[in-house]
Amino acid sequence: MGSLDSNNSTQTQSNVTKFNPLDPEEFRTQAHQMVDFIADYYKNIESYPVLSQVEPGYLRNHLPENAPYLPESLDTIMKDVEKHIIPGMTHWLSPNFFAFFPATVSSAAFLGEMLCNCFNSVGFNWLASPAMTELEMIIMDWLANMLKLPECFMFSGTGGGVIQGTTSEAILCTLIAARDRKLENIGVDNIGKLVVYGSDQTHSMYAKACKAAGIFPCNIRAISTCVENDFSLSPAVLRGIVEVDVAAGLVPLFLCATVGTTSTTAIDPISELGELANEFDIWLHVDAAYGGSACICPEFRQYLDGIERANSFSLSPHKWLLSYLDCCCMWVKEPSVLVKALSTNPEYLRNKRSEHGSVVDYKDWQIGTGRKFKSLRLWLIMRSYGVANLQSHIRSDVRMAKMFEGLVRSDPYFEVIVPRRFSLVCFRFNPDKEYEPAYTELLNKRLLDNVNSTGRVYMTHTVAGGIYMLRFAVGATFTEDRHLICAWKLIKDCADALLRNCQ
Amino acid sequence: MGSLDSNNSTQTQSNVTKFNPLDPEEFRTQAHQMVDFIADYYKNIESYPVLSQVEPGYLRNHLPENAPYLPESLDTIMKDVEKHIIPGMTHWLSPNFFAFFPATVSSAAFLGEMLCNCFNSVGFNWLASPAMTELEMIIMDWLANMLKLPECFMFSGTGGGVIQGTTSEAILCTLIAARDRKLENIGVDNIGKLVVYGSDQTHSMYAKACKAAGIFPCNIRAISTCVENDFSLSPAVLRGIVEVDVAAGLVPLFLCATVGTTSTTAIDPISELGELANEFDIWLHVDAAYGGSACICPEFRQYLDGIERANSFSLSPHKWLLSYLDCCCMWVKEPSVLVKALSTNPEYLRNKRSEHGSVVDYKDWQIGTGRKFKSLRLWLIMRSYGVANLQSHIRSDVRMAKMFEGLVRSDPYFEVIVPRRFSLVCFRFNPDKEYEPAYTELLNKRLLDNVNSTGRVYMTHTVAGGIYMLRFAVGATFTEDRHLICAWKLIKDCADALLRNCQ
Repeated sequence: MGSLDSNNSTQTQSNVTKFNPLDPEEFRTQAHQMVDFIADYYKNIESYPVLSQVEPGYLRNHLPENAPYLPESLDTIMKDVEKHIIPGMTHWLSPNFFAFFPATVSSAAFLGEMLCNCFNSVGFNWLASPAMTELEMIIMDWLANMLKLPECFMFSGTGGGVIQGTTSEAILCTLIAARDRKLENIGVDNIGKLVVYGSDQTHSMYAKACKAAGIFPCNIRAISTCVENDFSLSPAVLRGIVEVDVAAGLVPLFLCATVGTTSTTAIDPISELGELANEFDIWLHVDAAYGGSACICPEFRQYLDGIERANSFSLSPHKWLLSYLDCCCMWVKEPSVLVKALSTNPEYLRNKRSEHGSVVDYKDWQIGTGRKFKSLRLWLIMRSYGVANLQSHIRSDVRMAKMFEGLVRSDPYFEVIVPRRFSLVCFRFNPDKEYEPAYTELLNKRLLDNVNSTGRVYMTHTVAGGIYMLRFAVGATFTEDRHLICAWKLIKDCADALLRNCQ
Repeated sequence: MGSLDSNNSTQTQSNVTKFNPLDPEEFRTQAHQMVDFIADYYKNIESYPVLSQVEPGYLRNHLPENAPYLPESLDTIMKDVEKHIIPGMTHWLSPNFFAFFPATVSSAAFLGEMLCNCFNSVGFNWLASPAMTELEMIIMDWLANMLKLPECFMFSGTGGGVIQGTTSEAILCTLIAARDRKLENIGVDNIGKLVVYGSDQTHSMYAKACKAAGIFPCNIRAISTCVENDFSLSPAVLRGIVEVDVAAGLVPLFLCATVGTTSTTAIDPISELGELANEFDIWLHVDAAYGGSACICPEFRQYLDGIERANSFSLSPHKWLLSYLDCCCMWVKEPSVLVKALSTNPEYLRNKRSEHGSVVDYKDWQIGTGRKFKSLRLWLIMRSYGVANLQSHIRSDVRMAKMFEGLVRSDPYFEVIVPRRFSLVCFRFNPDKEYEPAYTELLNKRLLDNVNSTGRVYMTHTVAGGIYMLRFAVGATFTEDRHLICAWKLIKDCADALLRNCQ
């Protein structure tokens, strides 16, 4: 392998002269080769250990210190992928992946992403890619309709939606919009008075986004929840805290409510929280990153009741709507507030369309300038599968999670900690109620380690209300009933072995 | 096409029952079909008008109001792509695209992105995807070596790099790190004293990022530049302004210097600005989004001289290193400062690897939590082409831009406004030096409109130092000499027609 300082040989010169980074026929051959690699990977995905067993630093020993000076063939590179990259992967698409939340995928989304990359358009404003802007507006209305969002969130009504990368970006953008509107009234010098609210179950990125936006760390309230209330944010408790803040001369700014928290899929009561938020002129954002997708099914839509009281709402199709990473859909009730906070108008992007105000320029709905044609993925998903199949997909995952919950409940040595809402089961091994809590926790930690170190199943844990519990998240795209049954058997076997060792 | 409220027919039920979003063999067939579509698109790309000629709202008339209830075939969808999406595209990959900066592409990067999507791993911490974290660390060191960055920016030294989506994210992250370190010394209540600096040529997203981070708008300094100084930021002028701020009790925080500004590819003097920044304890970020890629060639490396004085540095391979969107490489000298500002530690992500501090958890280097395996793209680019071909690619674009510059200079009716540094030529039509400036500007606006409305060439404009100029950015991956020659002929013809109409 050449080094950076290689002198040009005659052969190099000739390679260099002919360099063409995208010859359509070479592209065709190589991309076909890659399609077969990927289809085979998906076909054989069960054969890989789901959790990588490598040690930190493993890869540096296998790769050279520098980029090669001369080209290498695709075959050589793909051999390295098989030999050095795949063993270091935690296989998120494995049917035995039950950790975190699944990152769901589909043929349609893969094709949509190929098409997005094919065009490689940069849609910062309408003119730079009219189709990108317009398809995104239409698709955001389609999804809003599937969720039965009120018209105030739709372009066909008085609001509108945008595709962000992640929920963090969605929250940061809406927070900045809320902050700037409030500071316009109270003066920028009063930024230290702004208070933001969430529960102790709100995603960790919320506090990070608040700090990023200059909210003083002492003004970020993470309100306690408890197992008795299924870790849901209590409007009564929140009211008490807001009133204390107001009495102290602080200014309530923003509330993030969650439909399906990361730890336990707890659901905050949107309707009541919305009333409270409206009363105190607090911007309410509803983060339904995971749970929102389920609300395309009528039986789950109740969790969004009262959404008309929110100022903004987001869900991430990369979690549960088969879209691949990364794709977060965000809707706002008053796009003008968002645009006022985030717009830029450099001369080199000026054009008649934008100046007439007749078009949406999505650069003014996000932090960055550049943006990809992500709506193609959602368009292909919705059309290739139809609402019927997407509902069926959600229901199938929920049915499997119910089945797993049933297995746990049927075993006296195990217990389900919180009611299952969607497709996550939070449970623990609790063979003897007389054990000290610390000992039960230790047992569960050992159980988790032992299960995961087999490479046959990967699940994770959480702690909520002081209780250490195991999280079993159903929904990886390739998962079938038989994987759950095997996983449960493995968990049971590991638990039995632990008990034998303890006695 | 079905509607959202369709009742399930028997046929639907059977579709739904069989729903499998990723059957490997169906995936194989459809992805092969898509590869051929894309290869054909690339082959025929010259046949499309480069700037879309559609009117705002065109797409809503062609698509239904709602997502379909039942699935549609890929053939049906692809027909709509050809009929309704492609006519609304501004074809960024067209060889006749000379607008903004090109978004460069390559077979290797496309394959890398396919592979990234294939795995769909979410690498928020090391354990969630060891290969993703480790390859990114290695690739960032490789690129740092290609740029001859000092060891203080490399993992093999004392720093390190990370892949962000866009420069906006890179700037926001470093700004927050700088802000939090400063506030730790002066107290968070003094956020209103923090001052940030750039030039009037700094990218518009800089001021947006500063506002996002809570910097008071009155404390964002955009220092004037002038054509005589090639729109470069003057260290002497900056010093004067910093000294006034310090004397007024304000606290200088952050300076964004640019290597290759968006308007005219101006270059700020890194070394002198770095000295000044170090003297006043200002965090210096060098934004080389566009120009940085050229610095892999020894003849351009001088523009990074003094980079060891910067705290952070970023460049975007999606601009000029063939990587497709979106990919911004950012290096920091003190990762611990970044991590301190951006780390989160929720229970559900805790693991032994992270707690032992033996690994990099990239979630603590960025705003969001989730992240894709973007380093695969850069790895495939570097290996498939080698440093030799990547240098050749830069030089080929620069050679073409020089050729275009020569054509402009050889015509007495045109003038080059600022010296060409990389592959952008800033020029204007100036047939008569006696014309009023406003009239010359009007002529150039008409010329631009007339050229772009042909659909045969797309270029854009800017205004700097009060001068309206045309920007001709060479570097779209498919562009060859003949496209430049045709473009110049079209520009000349349109200019001649304008003159005839004026007389």
